[in-house]
Amino acid sequence: MSDYVAPLKDMRFVLNELAGLNEVSALPGYEEATADVVDAIMEEAAKLASDVLAPLNATGDREGARWSDNAVTMPAGFKGAYRQFADNGWGGLDCPVEFGGQGLPKLVAAVVSEMWRSANHAFSLCPLLTRGAIEAIELTGSQEQKETYLPKMISGQWTGTMNLTEPQAGSDLAAVRTRAEPQADGSYRIFGQKIFITYGDHDMAENIIHLVLGRLPDAPEGVKGISLFVVPKFLVNADGSLGGRNDAYCVSIEHKLGIHASPTAVMAYGDHGGAVGYLVGRANEGLKYMFIMMNAARYSVGLEGLGLSERAYQMALAYAKERIQGRAIEGSSASVAIVRHPDVRRMLMLMRSQTEAMRALSYTVAAAIDKALRHPDPAERARQQAFVDLMIPIVKGWLTETGNEITWLGVQVHGGMGYIEETGAAQLLRDARITTIYEGTTGIQANDLIGRKVARDGGATLRAVIVLMREAQQAAAKDAALSELATAFSSSVDALERATAHLLACFASDIRGTSVGAVPFLKLLGIVSGGWLMTRAALAAQAHLAAGEADSFYAAKVASAAFYAAHVLAAAPGLAQIVVGGGASALAIEDDLL
Amino acid sequence: MSDYVAPLKDMRFVLNELAGLNEVSALPGYEEATADVVDAIMEEAAKLASDVLAPLNATGDREGARWSDNAVTMPAGFKGAYRQFADNGWGGLDCPVEFGGQGLPKLVAAVVSEMWRSANHAFSLCPLLTRGAIEAIELTGSQEQKETYLPKMISGQWTGTMNLTEPQAGSDLAAVRTRAEPQADGSYRIFGQKIFITYGDHDMAENIIHLVLGRLPDAPEGVKGISLFVVPKFLVNADGSLGGRNDAYCVSIEHKLGIHASPTAVMAYGDHGGAVGYLVGRANEGLKYMFIMMNAARYSVGLEGLGLSERAYQMALAYAKERIQGRAIEGSSASVAIVRHPDVRRMLMLMRSQTEAMRALSYTVAAAIDKALRHPDPAERARQQAFVDLMIPIVKGWLTETGNEITWLGVQVHGGMGYIEETGAAQLLRDARITTIYEGTTGIQANDLIGRKVARDGGATLRAVIVLMREAQQAAAKDAALSELATAFSSSVDALERATAHLLACFASDIRGTSVGAVPFLKLLGIVSGGWLMTRAALAAQAHLAAGEADSFYAAKVASAAFYAAHVLAAAPGLAQIVVGGGASALAIEDDLL
Repeated sequence: MSDYVAPLKDMRFVLNELAGLNEVSALPGYEEATADVVDAIMEEAAKLASDVLAPLNATGDREGARWSDNAVTMPAGFKGAYRQFADNGWGGLDCPVEFGGQGLPKLVAAVVSEMWRSANHAFSLCPLLTRGAIEAIELTGSQEQKETYLPKMISGQWTGTMNLTEPQAGSDLAAVRTRAEPQADGSYRIFGQKIFITYGDHDMAENIIHLVLGRLPDAPEGVKGISLFVVPKFLVNADGSLGGRNDAYCVSIEHKLGIHASPTAVMAYGDHGGAVGYLVGRANEGLKYMFIMMNAARYSVGLEGLGLSERAYQMALAYAKERIQGRAIEGSSASVAIVRHPDVRRMLMLMRSQTEAMRALSYTVAAAIDKALRHPDPAERARQQAFVDLMIPIVKGWLTETGNEITWLGVQVHGGMGYIEETGAAQLLRDARITTIYEGTTGIQANDLIGRKVARDGGATLRAVIVLMREAQQAAAKDAALSELATAFSSSVDALERATAHLLACFASDIRGTSVGAVPFLKLLGIVSGGWLMTRAALAAQAHLAAGEADSFYAAKVASAAFYAAHVLAAAPGLAQIVVGGGASALAIEDDLL
Repeated sequence: MSDYVAPLKDMRFVLNELAGLNEVSALPGYEEATADVVDAIMEEAAKLASDVLAPLNATGDREGARWSDNAVTMPAGFKGAYRQFADNGWGGLDCPVEFGGQGLPKLVAAVVSEMWRSANHAFSLCPLLTRGAIEAIELTGSQEQKETYLPKMISGQWTGTMNLTEPQAGSDLAAVRTRAEPQADGSYRIFGQKIFITYGDHDMAENIIHLVLGRLPDAPEGVKGISLFVVPKFLVNADGSLGGRNDAYCVSIEHKLGIHASPTAVMAYGDHGGAVGYLVGRANEGLKYMFIMMNAARYSVGLEGLGLSERAYQMALAYAKERIQGRAIEGSSASVAIVRHPDVRRMLMLMRSQTEAMRALSYTVAAAIDKALRHPDPAERARQQAFVDLMIPIVKGWLTETGNEITWLGVQVHGGMGYIEETGAAQLLRDARITTIYEGTTGIQANDLIGRKVARDGGATLRAVIVLMREAQQAAAKDAALSELATAFSSSVDALERATAHLLACFASDIRGTSVGAVPFLKLLGIVSGGWLMTRAALAAQAHLAAGEADSFYAAKVASAAFYAAHVLAAAPGLAQIVVGGGASALAIEDDLL
């Protein structure tokens, strides 16, 4: 397997020229996140990613997490790597300073997170879940809960999990059955089984803080009766030291297609008298709390699509330059490296240009998250939040769908060697396959997009984004070198407008027919959003070239944007046509004729 | 894992209404292949597929083929299943009667082959490779070689392999280095290493007949110096009994993403003094012989895309009908099966309609293969052969690319359960992943298509197919129930014509730029060919409905065709645009800037 090297140059370009790091550094509380500081952080993260995490990716996959006697043993090297990760403060990068975090912007955390995901997707899930649990406690926990759990979770001494799914309750949390019995001391006894619990058990940290959705005895049915509980693996004494083992056990782990080093646990709560749990926030509001955190979790999974794509591209490119096979198609006396073959080049450019577009979009959304939290102007905060809400299903859905396509292409570039596990390309494909499923399938993202994010505000937020897209398109049209790109991008925005108009016109009257087009609409908005940022990237690169800068990075960026316009945006009118005209034929026959 | 049930009804529909079984039965030598006989064969094959082969699919995947001491042990049950398969004569279905085969048409073999591939892809590769070796010996071997090998290979007593690839010679056979030293007795000693040899060793048959590409001492360099040799695992005595062990050993097998039960061998020839081999056909003409067989091999791999898709669809549909999760999007008091969710329905229809289109195309091509071989009119034979030559890269390339998409969707329909190996959906995805690579990658199919199959005859063969497409389109346009389908299909044929015109105009002057569009062109011709046959299917179904037949199969077929037109053909204009305008941007930057 080839090495991973963080693409620092493109990361800096996106940070500074597209996502607006300078605007984020100007927000109250983020003044220390200057370009120099961020650069130093990125270089340190890049070293950890390349030197420590990336080499464990293949070995972790082969060895896998192992379960016996209700406990999980991680693959060799993971415990040490985690210790280094935690000791260097990476777990608390964007966590509150008052509990020991570094208080840096989400934008910086996003860049660093991309590296963890590229280097070792399975490893990166432990801090991802812990970060989610930290946020849950920070936003909804009592002061005592915060003081008890946050410092040790932020320092990485303890990790966290999210326990939502049950066998009958996957996408539909209304069906959750885990129950919580109130005790005289104000605590609860938790009884129930949870499945698909990422890092539900492991041996890398001394305690695991489980956040568990369950029902109080008098709770209403459905989603309005779900409460959130904190259930530590080891109880915590008043002085913060560890007490007895709680009745929360990992009774098995799943045998999965990928992310073998990430233990996916079946958790049994209360099989031996009841697991001690504590209510977080108010009773029956657990689902609301989950929704608060869902944006962050979905955003994080989107970065997995990006990180895996970058790794797949690096691996495929290295192989394509090294593998000598066949003559050049236009004729050559000697055999050539396969990168010379036009179809291999096409695949590599698909990988490269879409990875760049995904990076540009995800960092831009991260900057908007920071602005939505910290901007001094409430109207601007609201505007940024609306943009974030619109884009979260795109970051989750489009980046993970595209990540699946790109890791698939990574195998294809390797030819027969791609099918051999030792090569490493197939692992990326296997690891990527979960990303369009967990934290809400693409279908669920797409329903969220067309319903809550587009139809609900009458398309206002999306229209504001389309205005920005048109501005970029018009700027590009003025540059002769970008005129083809501008034309292709313009057609794709036209397609987006057609699809949006149909959606707004028909969502209320034909929700089933409109929903058939939900995923095609998500993909359409994804590729056009990517086209918007690649157009902006090309404009920025052209400005550098016009200023006489000789760096070939800028010429490559313009070429990448042009390729994206010609090969990726070409799909936009077809997607719009499916949104507009695909509803009836999908629903024409009865289920039993399928 | 759900059961596999052969889709006999759709198979019969395609056989009789689209591929023209009656025309094939009318060919000299195929008179016995009447509809009744074929039906009886299909029902027997369906039983073997469902009862014997399908249950071994998951267990074979888990256990895998195992190697030790230069020999491969197959997973439990495979030896017995193979014995039953061979004893029932399935290995010789379309083989020459004079050597013990049943002499049935390729069309019948195609239907039955689809079942083997759906039931157990890994198992089906053994007869597939054996069939290829039979054909090689039949077409190019001496009478003595035919008498020595064919009866026992056709009976399944012995199996066969094809040894092409070496570490430095994958897609490029010019780089083959295996050498053959002439011996005084007219035989050769073979020295060399071959990799990726499917069923290079196993314990299901008493002998294995290896066909090996190598070079004579005085052979010219490159592809013009490659000869074909037959190298049996056990030497064969003059009386047909088995002699000594030949110096041809499986020295390891690969650890692959999928098809775990199919041993992929590294074969060492001549490590202990030289493997005894015999020249097949004339010296230095081995590559030509390989090309003769390549159509058959590529066609067979295309059927894997179809077979895996059918299995994935059956599995996903069963799960979608059984899994209760969430409320109906238009509102429902109770939870519903997920088949009710519009996006799940969309995915199932994508799986179903494309599987039907692939079946229709592949059987139609099989019928053309039969006509090209047996039609009494030489002009008709030539016309059918040209159609077959054009369509082989489509059957190989489009069916396997689509098979990858459909097995991917199969996992998605299962949600989180799809990622768990025990479910079985992920195995189909893993097994499918090789199909776009072996027997020539999609890129190689696409280069063959645009160069040898389209540009070389100035587009004449393709234009003749487009005439047939237009006829179907015009017929559909006359039926009000099919007018939307006809419009969508017409646009897709327009797109195909635009792309073809560009290809013909620019292939000679800009071979690199044109080749960037090769795979998009292959996909375009694939989906439009599928659209042609789905249009014909809809017309045939409408005729039955018009005749008052109450069978809901026909209404479902019309709906499937309409869905295909709205959702699959919608991509055609975008693909054409890539073919026409995607060359320059893909090649704009130097390789070292990638």
